[in-house]
Parts: sequence; C-alpha cells; structure tokens
Amino acid sequence: MALKDYLHRQRQRVESALVSLIPPENHPPAQLHKAMHYSLFAGGKRIRPILHLAAAEAVGGDSDACLPFACALELIHTYSLIHDDLPAMDDDDLRRGKATNHVVFGEAMAILAGDALLTEAFRLLSSPSTLERLDPRALLRAIHELAHAAGSQGMVGGQALDILSENRPPEEEVLHFIHSHKTGALIRASVRTGAILARASEDVLERLTRYGERLGLAFQIRDDLLNVEGDPRKLGKSVGTDASKGKMTYPALFGLERTRTRLGQLVEEALDALSPLDKKADPLRWIASYMIERDR
Amino acid sequence: MALKDYLHRQRQRVESALVSLIPPENHPPAQLHKAMHYSLFAGGKRIRPILHLAAAEAVGGDSDACLPFACALELIHTYSLIHDDLPAMDDDDLRRGKATNHVVFGEAMAILAGDALLTEAFRLLSSPSTLERLDPRALLRAIHELAHAAGSQGMVGGQALDILSENRPPEEEVLHFIHSHKTGALIRASVRTGAILARASEDVLERLTRYGERLGLAFQIRDDLLNVEGDPRKLGKSVGTDASKGKMTYPALFGLERTRTRLGQLVEEALDALSPLDKKADPLRWIASYMIERDR
Repeated sequence: MALKDYLHRQRQRVESALVSLIPPENHPPAQLHKAMHYSLFAGGKRIRPILHLAAAEAVGGDSDACLPFACALELIHTYSLIHDDLPAMDDDDLRRGKATNHVVFGEAMAILAGDALLTEAFRLLSSPSTLERLDPRALLRAIHELAHAAGSQGMVGGQALDILSENRPPEEEVLHFIHSHKTGALIRASVRTGAILARASEDVLERLTRYGERLGLAFQIRDDLLNVEGDPRKLGKSVGTDASKGKMTYPALFGLERTRTRLGQLVEEALDALSPLDKKADPLRWIASYMIERDR
Repeated sequence: MALKDYLHRQRQRVESALVSLIPPENHPPAQLHKAMHYSLFAGGKRIRPILHLAAAEAVGGDSDACLPFACALELIHTYSLIHDDLPAMDDDDLRRGKATNHVVFGEAMAILAGDALLTEAFRLLSSPSTLERLDPRALLRAIHELAHAAGSQGMVGGQALDILSENRPPEEEVLHFIHSHKTGALIRASVRTGAILARASEDVLERLTRYGERLGLAFQIRDDLLNVEGDPRKLGKSVGTDASKGKMTYPALFGLERTRTRLGQLVEEALDALSPLDKKADPLRWIASYMIERDR
C-alpha cells in the first residue's frame, strides 16, 4: 500500500512538471508537438523519474530541485520507445494499449518526434530555471552521466546490439551486454544522477550504483518474463513477440525457472546494497520488491 | 586566399579534435560506431564548428577551449543529415558523393547512428575535460542555446514543417519558418555559443546574433540555388531534387533573379552587423562573402 501511494504521488509530481516544462502541443509546428505529447502522455509508469527522485530523497536531498532532471529521464525513455517501435526497428503497432507513434503520425513525424524529445531533454537540463536550484558543476556531472548512459556506449549501443543479434544463437555475454546497456544503463543513471544532484557522498553513491545496476537487470528480466507469461490486456501490448522475432532474452537462454531465480537474487542484492541507509531509502526498497510482482 | 587557408587550418583542427573526442569506430558495438564514423568523416565542410571558433576568436576568446563545443555542433549537424536522408524522410541515396548512411548500414543502424551522434554531442559538451577550460555557467548557457536551436523549436521543428509542406502551394511565411528553423537556428547558435563561451559583452553578442541570422538565411538560400543551378559533380549529390519533391524553396517562390538579389542583401547585412568589430572578426567577414560564391 505504501508503495502504491508513493508511486501514485510521485507520478503526479512528474506529470505536472512535464506539462509545465514541455512546449504545449499546439506549439508550431503543431503536428510535431502533438506527436511528442502523444507518446509522452500515453500512460507510462514514470519509473525512471521516480527512481531519480527517490534516490535524491534517500540521501536527504531536495527532490523539487530534481524535477526537471526527472522529466528529462522520461523524455529520453519516451524517445527511445518511439524509435524502437519504428518499422525499420522492432516494427511494433501497439504500445501501452495504444497505436504506436508512427502508426498515428507517420514514420517521418515519429522519427522527428523522437529526435525532438531527446533534444528537449538536454534543453530542459541546461535551462536557467533548472540551474537556479542546483550547483552548476553537479548539474554538468549529472548531464554527462545521463548522456553517457543514453548514447552509443549505453542505451543506443544496447539497442544496436539487440537488433544485430536477432535470430543469432543465444550467447550469455551478448545477452549481458544488451541487458546492461539497453535498459540497465538508463536505470542506473536515473538513480546515480538523483544522488549526484543531492550531493551524496562517494561511498553512498557507490552503494546506490550497485542498487541501480541490480535493479536495471531485474527490470529487464521482468520485462522478458512478461513477454512470455504476461497478460496482454494488462501490458497493453502483445506477448510472445520476443520469441517470434528471435530476440535474445534471459528466458530464451536459461528457461523460465532459472530466470525467476535470477530475478529474485537480483532484488536481494539491490536491497542488500541499501542496508546502511536509513528509512529515507524505503521507497527505493519498495521499488525493488515491486520488480518481482509487477504485471505491466 | 586568406579564406581558403583559414578554412583549411580550422577544418584540420576540427578533424583532429573529432577523432580524439569520439569513441573509435571499433568500439563495441562496432557496427554502430562504424556507421557514426562513416557519416562524420564523409568530407563535410565543417562550417558550423568553424563559425563557432571564428566567433570566439572575433571577441578575443581562447578557441582551443571551444573545440569540444565546435565538435558537438558538427555531431548534431551530421545526425540531422543521416535522419533527413532516411527513406521515410527525404529518401536520398547520395550525399557528398557517397552512398547515404542507411544505404550502407541499413535503416535501423542509420536511425541509431543519428540518435547516438545527437546524444554524443551532449556527452562531449558536459564532459569534465570540456569544463576544465570553461566557466560552468557560461557552458550551461551555451548548451541550453544549442539544445533550443536543435530541437522542436529550432532545427527539428523546421525539418518537420519542411516535410509537412511538401507539394503544398508556396507561402512566404511558411518558407521563412522553414529556413530560419531548419538551417538558420543551428548556424545562429554556432556563432552565438562561440561568443558566449568567450564571454562576449551583450552588445557584441547582439551584433554577432544579427550576423548569424543573416548568414544562416544566406546559407540556406545558397543551398536552394545550388539545387537549381549547381554542378552535381562538385556538390556530390543530385540537383533538381527540391523541384521534383515539391519542396518549398526561395527560387520556387521568388524565381532565380530575386533569389540572387536577396542573397547579396543578406551578406551585406551580415557584414554590416560586424562593422564595429576589429580585424579579429575578419574570418567571419570572409565566411559571409564566401556564401555568394561557394559551389558546394
């Protein structure tokens, strides 16, 4: 119950901040801004911004000052979904129970909406109002971490190897690269940047990094499991698509039983990393446990 | 001659900086980094980075400190070309005399290479080594300007309206929006950010802004003219494509005669904006005059 309330409250903070910080959907060219809004407000879980705020709060930081950064994380996540869904990439028609961006707005506008959301993230991060409440050097360090995690040595690199590995014989090393880059890097960065903006000590930052890495892997493994045994109505998208596309996933390589065991282990390790932190870190603990049970 | 030497020298500085600052092309996943390098080192004129360095030098700044920013401008320009050439966008097979990125690496890798180059720009801008020689607040202000100019209210917005306006009756207002956003915004920002990093006074910055705006329009008008009457061998791409695609251009709306007159006016206005600046601004003057004669 505490988790559900917490997620609900934080999600509302993120939604209002997004609405106030992003250009309105009638801003010219309206078709582009409509496409951006369509995917940005399509019912995402906002898990990355919430992790960012929770990490800042866990170390006693002012999470209001972190809201623009939290929004930027969601902008980057949303752009990556729009581009991943494109016909040339995963070619998905449905996302969160709604037609994907290119189905509604056409491929050209979907590519541009993704490009614009990614750029908007960095516009927001560097805006004078963001800087007002943060130390400029801490902000630049956090921007650098985020860009590293989102780029060719992080998320985009993972997505590239994911595409290049389709229909290849599964290999543990390749799977680990895909998981730790495609989803892991941005989740790890969501946690770390929250702690960096809140001026965590290097020791605490190291613990939160371990938490973020384990959580990122757990998140991707849970996604892989849901693609095998999830409920398409709750997920808002089809299941079984990884297998039909020959995607390299944890269940494909190790089977369902070992996958569930690994998920449990990762959540234990994430919780263990937080052990010296006080109850301000409880939301991070709740989110870790939620990885085992989430059904969308 | 002075211009030719100057462009050559500055281009070499930018090339070396790019090589040293970007992950090597064998960095995993190698296919992604190969695709990034392919377009980044395909013989671009490097006009945006050179404008940035020249603006910093015009106000007496240390342009070595600006090299990472100069490179970031070229990364953003290169990503925009890769995405513009995609089948869903302008569907071009040839660029600078070479096959376009998606023709060589496939559409998925071309989309991802573009995403990665855009993200890499902001990784570079916020890196500790960039910050070492710059004031953090000036750097954040310049990053913000660049992100604004590159995003939905700048370059991406211009490209969106360009696509949405194909085969529509030409309108001066729409054409002005496309020009000032699609090409103008990034060229204006190239000049402004150089001046901002070099701590120009607001008065000088205002003059350089005027210079950058006129130059950006002149640049786009020259591009439109070359698409009508240029030499395909020198350009490294086909001509007449704007007309066949029904693109809204200056020659289509006003004819060749008025277009040439307008180009000359814009260059005069750009030079006029620089009038109180001393000879350190000469390279900016040479670049403005070059707009009238350039053949690629």
